[in-house]
Amino acid sequence: MIHFSILKKSKKSRARLGLLETPHGVVETPAFVGVATQATVKAMTMDQVRSTGMQLLIANTYHLHIRPGEDVVKKGGGLHKFMDWDRPLMTDSGGFQVFSLGFGKDRGTGKILKEKSDEKIREGEQPRTVRITEDGVEFRSYVDGRKLFIGPRESMRIQEKLGADIIFNFDECTSPIADHAYTKKSLDKTHRWARVCIDSKKSKQALYGVVQGGKFKDLRIESAEFMNKLPFAGFGIGGEFGDDKRQMTKMIDWVVSELDEARPRHLLGIGYLEDMPKIIASGIDTFDCIVPTHYARRGVAFTSRGRLDIGRTEFLSDKKPLDPKCSCFVCQNHTRSYLSHLLRAHEITPLTLLSFHNMHYFNAYVSMLREDIKKGNL
Amino acid sequence: MIHFSILKKSKKSRARLGLLETPHGVVETPAFVGVATQATVKAMTMDQVRSTGMQLLIANTYHLHIRPGEDVVKKGGGLHKFMDWDRPLMTDSGGFQVFSLGFGKDRGTGKILKEKSDEKIREGEQPRTVRITEDGVEFRSYVDGRKLFIGPRESMRIQEKLGADIIFNFDECTSPIADHAYTKKSLDKTHRWARVCIDSKKSKQALYGVVQGGKFKDLRIESAEFMNKLPFAGFGIGGEFGDDKRQMTKMIDWVVSELDEARPRHLLGIGYLEDMPKIIASGIDTFDCIVPTHYARRGVAFTSRGRLDIGRTEFLSDKKPLDPKCSCFVCQNHTRSYLSHLLRAHEITPLTLLSFHNMHYFNAYVSMLREDIKKGNL
Repeated sequence: MIHFSILKKSKKSRARLGLLETPHGVVETPAFVGVATQATVKAMTMDQVRSTGMQLLIANTYHLHIRPGEDVVKKGGGLHKFMDWDRPLMTDSGGFQVFSLGFGKDRGTGKILKEKSDEKIREGEQPRTVRITEDGVEFRSYVDGRKLFIGPRESMRIQEKLGADIIFNFDECTSPIADHAYTKKSLDKTHRWARVCIDSKKSKQALYGVVQGGKFKDLRIESAEFMNKLPFAGFGIGGEFGDDKRQMTKMIDWVVSELDEARPRHLLGIGYLEDMPKIIASGIDTFDCIVPTHYARRGVAFTSRGRLDIGRTEFLSDKKPLDPKCSCFVCQNHTRSYLSHLLRAHEITPLTLLSFHNMHYFNAYVSMLREDIKKGNL
Repeated sequence: MIHFSILKKSKKSRARLGLLETPHGVVETPAFVGVATQATVKAMTMDQVRSTGMQLLIANTYHLHIRPGEDVVKKGGGLHKFMDWDRPLMTDSGGFQVFSLGFGKDRGTGKILKEKSDEKIREGEQPRTVRITEDGVEFRSYVDGRKLFIGPRESMRIQEKLGADIIFNFDECTSPIADHAYTKKSLDKTHRWARVCIDSKKSKQALYGVVQGGKFKDLRIESAEFMNKLPFAGFGIGGEFGDDKRQMTKMIDWVVSELDEARPRHLLGIGYLEDMPKIIASGIDTFDCIVPTHYARRGVAFTSRGRLDIGRTEFLSDKKPLDPKCSCFVCQNHTRSYLSHLLRAHEITPLTLLSFHNMHYFNAYVSMLREDIKKGNL
C-alpha cells in the first residue's frame, strides 16, 4: 500500500512536487532511485547508501530469482531485512531482461543498435536464446544452465516473496528496432499480462503498470490509455531508446498526457544528470539508473564541472576534492590526487569512494531540482 | 619521536602491556597493526578502519615509491593527510621486497620453499631480476619498467617524505634457503646499512632497527646484539619462515633475549590468530599482517568457531551472523546467508563487509589478550 500526494504543480511544466508514502517511509518526489540489482548497491554498504541521502532503491526480480532465489530472500525475512535496507524499496518485474537477454543479446542495445538502425525485428521473430510465448518467457539460468520460466503469475509470486513496497507488472520491453507489427503484437501481450498480474497478486504491495509501445506514438498512447484504466497504484514507463534522448522525451510526453495525474509515475532505467530536468519537467516522479555507481567503478566522478576521469595522470597532483562544492565525506576528506593514486593502483577502495560521491551528487542534484519546483523555476 | 612505557610485565612469559606514544596518539600494546600497502586498507574506507578499533597502520615504502611516488604523497601533506589516517602510522623500509621480488620470485616463498628445502642460495649468488650491491638494490618499476635504486640513504629520504611516525632501517630480508655464508654476508651488509640509516636520517621520526639473520641462531643473536647497541627507537624482527611456525617462535626467543627491554619490538609481517598468543608471550609489542583483509577478499571470515568459507552453499540458508559473539556492525546487521549470496554473485560489497569483520575480530582478539596480561593469564 502506498499513498501519493502532490504538494505542488509547476506552472511552467508538468513537473510536480510530491510525497510517496510507503510502509517503509516517505519519499520526497521527484526522486532518484538507486539500483540494487542483486540486493546490494555495488561497492557500497547500506550505511553508506543511506548517508548519500538515498530515499528509495530498486532491486532486480530476474537476477534475484536466478540467484539466490526468492525463497532464500523470503527465509531471510524478505528483501528489506535480507539486505538491511529499512527505507522504501521497489522490485522490477523481470521483463526488461526478456529484452536484454533476448533480442538485446542477439542484435545489440544502445549505441550498437543505433548504428544499424535500418535492421528490423519483425512480427513472429524469436530471439535465439530466449523463448517468448503467450504465457511468459522460457530461458536458462546464467549460473547453472537450468531451464527457467517467468510469466505474469510467476513474476507476481517472486515479487511477493521478495516483498518490496512497490512492484511492477510483467511486461515485454521491445527493442527499438522492432517494427510496428512486432511492437503492436508484443504490446497486446503485455496488456493481457497486466490483467493477469492484477488478478493474481495476493499481497498488499503497490503494483505499478508499465507502459510500453516502443517508439510508436499510437502504441504508446494506446498503452497509456489501457494501463490508466486498470487499478494500478502507479505507472512505470519502460522502453529502450539507446542514445536517442529526443525520442525518449517525446515518448514521455505522449504517455504522461494520458495518465491519471493522481498516481505516481516511474521512468525505468533512465537518469543521466543532463536528462533529469527534462524528465522531471515531463511529469516523472521517480526514475532509477545505474549511472552513478556504474561510472564510479570505471573511475568517473560526476561534478559541477562535468565528468572527471579521475585515474588520469593530471589528477595525480590535483589537491582539490572531487567537487569543491560537494559536502559529501569523500570530498571533505580526500583529494583527487589520492583517489587518482588509488585508481591507478587498482585498489577497491576508490570504487566505493567514487560510488559514494556520485550517488550523493545525484541525490543532491535531484534535491536541488525539487527546490526549483518549490520556487517555481522548473 | 615516540615514547614507550611498560605498564605491566607478565610473570608467566615475556608478555608485556605497554603504551606506545607517538605524535599521532597512543597505541595500547600488544597491538595488531593493519596493513595499508598502497596508502589504503584494501576494500575499506578509513572511517571503517577506525571503527574496527585499529590503532596503528603500516604502509609500504617500496610500493609507494614506485606509485604514486613519495613526492606526490609529500605534496599531499604527507602520508597521514594523503590517506586521511589520523592515528599512528609506520612505513617499512622497502627491504622485504628485495627478497620477495628477488630470490623470492626466482625460488618461491612460503610453502613452495618448504617443499624444496634442500635447495640452497649460496654466497655470491644474485637474484635474476634484482641486483643487490654494496650500496643497495637495483630493480625495475613494475609499473613502467624504469630503473630504480633503493639503498639505506634512499630509504630514509623516501620514508622521511612519506612522514610516518615510525620508520624502519633498510635491510635485506634473506630467504630461508639461503645458506649460512650467504646469510652472514647479507647480515654484515644489513648492519653496515643500519649505521648509514642512523647517520643519514634527518627527521624526528622514530627509527626502528630490523634484526635479521635467517634461521641461524648465531647470526640472529649477533644481529640482535648489534642492533641493540645502536640508538634505535625500537626494533623490528624480520625474516621469511614460510609455514615453519616452530622455527619462528624459536627465532623470536633468541632475538628478544638480546634486546633492551625498554624499547618496543615489532614483528614484521606475521600475525595469524593462532600465532598471536605465542608471539605476545615471546615479548612482541606490535605485529602487522595482511591476513584479515587478504582472506576477506577470498570470502573467508575469522570467527570464534574458526575460519568460515562464507561463499559455500551451506551458508546460503544460514541466518546466523558471521560470528554470533561478535559486536561488529556486519554481525549486527547481516546474516551469513546474505553475505554468502553476495560472494556468490561476485559483488564487491561483501569484500568490504568481510574485511571489516575480520579486522574488527583481530583487534578484539588482541584486546582480549591485553586483558589476559592484565589479569596475569598470559
